[in-house]
Amino acid sequence: MELIHLGHGSGGRMMHQLIRDYMAPAFEMKSLNDSAVVDTLPPGRIALTTDSYVISPIFFPGGDIGMLSVCGTVNDLCVSGARPLYLTAGFIIEEGFPLPHLKKILESMSSKAREIGVSVIAGDTKVVERGKADGLFINTAGIGVIEEGVDISPLNIRPGDKVILSGPIGRHGISVMAERNGISFDPPVLSDVCGLNGLVDRMLKFTKKVRVMRDPTRGGAATTLKELANESDLCITVSEKMIQVPPGVRGACELLGLDPLYIANEGALIAVVDQAEAEGLVHEMRKDGAGEHAAIIGEVTASPRKTVLLKTDIGGIRIIDMLLGDQLPRIC
Amino acid sequence: MELIHLGHGSGGRMMHQLIRDYMAPAFEMKSLNDSAVVDTLPPGRIALTTDSYVISPIFFPGGDIGMLSVCGTVNDLCVSGARPLYLTAGFIIEEGFPLPHLKKILESMSSKAREIGVSVIAGDTKVVERGKADGLFINTAGIGVIEEGVDISPLNIRPGDKVILSGPIGRHGISVMAERNGISFDPPVLSDVCGLNGLVDRMLKFTKKVRVMRDPTRGGAATTLKELANESDLCITVSEKMIQVPPGVRGACELLGLDPLYIANEGALIAVVDQAEAEGLVHEMRKDGAGEHAAIIGEVTASPRKTVLLKTDIGGIRIIDMLLGDQLPRIC
Repeated sequence: MELIHLGHGSGGRMMHQLIRDYMAPAFEMKSLNDSAVVDTLPPGRIALTTDSYVISPIFFPGGDIGMLSVCGTVNDLCVSGARPLYLTAGFIIEEGFPLPHLKKILESMSSKAREIGVSVIAGDTKVVERGKADGLFINTAGIGVIEEGVDISPLNIRPGDKVILSGPIGRHGISVMAERNGISFDPPVLSDVCGLNGLVDRMLKFTKKVRVMRDPTRGGAATTLKELANESDLCITVSEKMIQVPPGVRGACELLGLDPLYIANEGALIAVVDQAEAEGLVHEMRKDGAGEHAAIIGEVTASPRKTVLLKTDIGGIRIIDMLLGDQLPRIC
Repeated sequence: MELIHLGHGSGGRMMHQLIRDYMAPAFEMKSLNDSAVVDTLPPGRIALTTDSYVISPIFFPGGDIGMLSVCGTVNDLCVSGARPLYLTAGFIIEEGFPLPHLKKILESMSSKAREIGVSVIAGDTKVVERGKADGLFINTAGIGVIEEGVDISPLNIRPGDKVILSGPIGRHGISVMAERNGISFDPPVLSDVCGLNGLVDRMLKFTKKVRVMRDPTRGGAATTLKELANESDLCITVSEKMIQVPPGVRGACELLGLDPLYIANEGALIAVVDQAEAEGLVHEMRKDGAGEHAAIIGEVTASPRKTVLLKTDIGGIRIIDMLLGDQLPRIC
C-alpha cells in the first residue's frame, strides 16, 4: 500500500504529483499555488466560516472525515442563513498515512460537495512526521451569501417564540464513540452527518420569520439551547418528551452514563421561530429528508433570563447548563 | 503554567471561556458559533485561499507561527493580485500546550493582522490528546478582492518579459532550520516573514503589466520559477549573480549541503513583467521595505519550453528542476 511521505508536503515534485493525481481530480482546483479566483458573488451579505476536523476514527458508521468536513462547514453557513457557495480545504497529513485512505476521503468530500452544490476551489497540503499528528486532519473554510430579507440572529428572539428541533439527537456522537471503542449496536447507530442546505432553503422560502438557527454539534442540543438563552437574554423551556432520542442512542447513553442532550449531532438543526409560523414550518420541514422528524420542542419566555429549563418526562423541571469539560472528545 | 485541556475543545463551558478570554480579545469575532457575516465586498473578482501552518518550532528567529499564519495567507492573496480583506483562523491544539504560548501567538497574529489591515473574523478551536499533534497547528483561509484591470496569470507571460526578485532568498528556511537544530549564526539569520501587501499595492499602482507574481515559499525560488516555466510553456533564464543570498544563508547552505534556491522564503516575491516596465518597477519596488533589494534576475524566452536555466557565476548553464522530495520539512 502506498503511503504518504514527508516529501508529499515539501512544495516540490512529489507534492505536485499528489495534487495532480489526488487533489485536482476530486475538486475544481485550477492551481494549488495561487488563490482561487471567482467572479463577483451574487448580491447579499457575505458569510464566512471555518472548521477543523480532527475526528477519531476518521471512518465511522454512516460517514467519514471527508464528508464531515464538507457538511459541517456547509451547515455552519446554512444556519447563518447563507447559501453556501465555495469551500477551501486544508489537509494536515501524518507521514505514513495510506494513500488509498486519502483517495477514499477525497472522493467522499467530492461527492458530498457535488450533492450539496458547493465547489471546493482552493486547497493546501502539509505533511508532518510520524507521531506528530493523528492520521489526517482537515480544515475547511466556507463562503456563502445571505439574501436580502434573511436576518438570522439570537437578538431577534422574542418571548412567545417556538423552538423547533429538526430530528432525533445523539446519533453522530454515539456512532463515533461506538466505533472508537469497538462497541456495536443492533441495529447499528449511524451518524446523522448530512448537509442541511436543502432543509434550510425550504425553511427560508416558507417564512422569513425564522429568528435564529443553530446546528447542535460539539456540546449537543443542551449547549446550543444554552447559547441561545444567553445570547438572547431570555429563557428557553423545552419538553423532554418532544426531544426524540433513538433507542440505540438511549441505550448507549444509559450504559455509559452519558446524557443525549450533550451528544454531538452533524445533521440536526435547532430553530427559533415566530409562534404564528411554527406549526406550518414544522409541516414544511417534514417534507425534507433532514427534517422528516421535525417537532416543536419548546418555547421562549422572558424569564428567568439566560436560562434553559427542561420539563422532564416525569413532570419535573431541570436546569440545563453547558458542560464544563467534555463527554466525548474528538467528535468532529 | 496553565495548560490546554481536552475540555477546551469540547464545545462546552471551558471552550466558551477560552474563546472569551483568549480568542475574542485578539480578533474581531462577534461569535464563534455562527459564521461571521460581512457586508457586500468591494467590486471586483474574489480571491480565496487557504494554508495550514505546521511549522516546527513554532517560535523561530524573526517570527512565530502566529504572524506566519497571517502573512502567508495574506501573501497568497496579494500575489494573485487581490487586496486581502478577511481571514478565518482554525486552531488545532495538543492537550498540554501552554496557554501563555497560545496568548503570545494570538497577540502576534492580531498585531500582524492590524498592521496589514485584514480582519480575522471567524475561528475554530479543536483540542487533540497528547501525542496526537505537535503543539499547535493553525489554518488560515483568506478572502480578497481583485480590482478591475488587474490580471495576474502565468498564461500572460510572453517571451522578452523580465523576471524580478524582491530581495535576498533563503532567510526563512535557514532561520527555522537553525532554531530546530540549535545552531546559531553571528549575526543571526532572521526569517524574512512579512506581509507583501504594501509592496504589491505599490507594484500594481505603478503598472498593470505585471504578468504574474508568486511568493517562493516551500520549494524555494527554484520551484516557483519551474512552476512558472511549466505553466507558461516558456523558458526562464536567471543569472546566479543577480540572486542575492545573505552571507549567513550562504554559509549555512555550504555547511549543510543545501541549495539556497530551494530554501523557503516568507517575505519574498518573484514577478514576471513586461520588459518595458521592468526597470521602472524595480525602482518603485525599492521604495518599499519588503522590496528594497529588488532586482531583475532574468528573462523569458520561447524555448526550450517548460525549462528554467541558471547562468552560474563561473559562466556555466545549469538546468533547474523541482526538488523530488524535500530539503527541510515543516518549514511553514
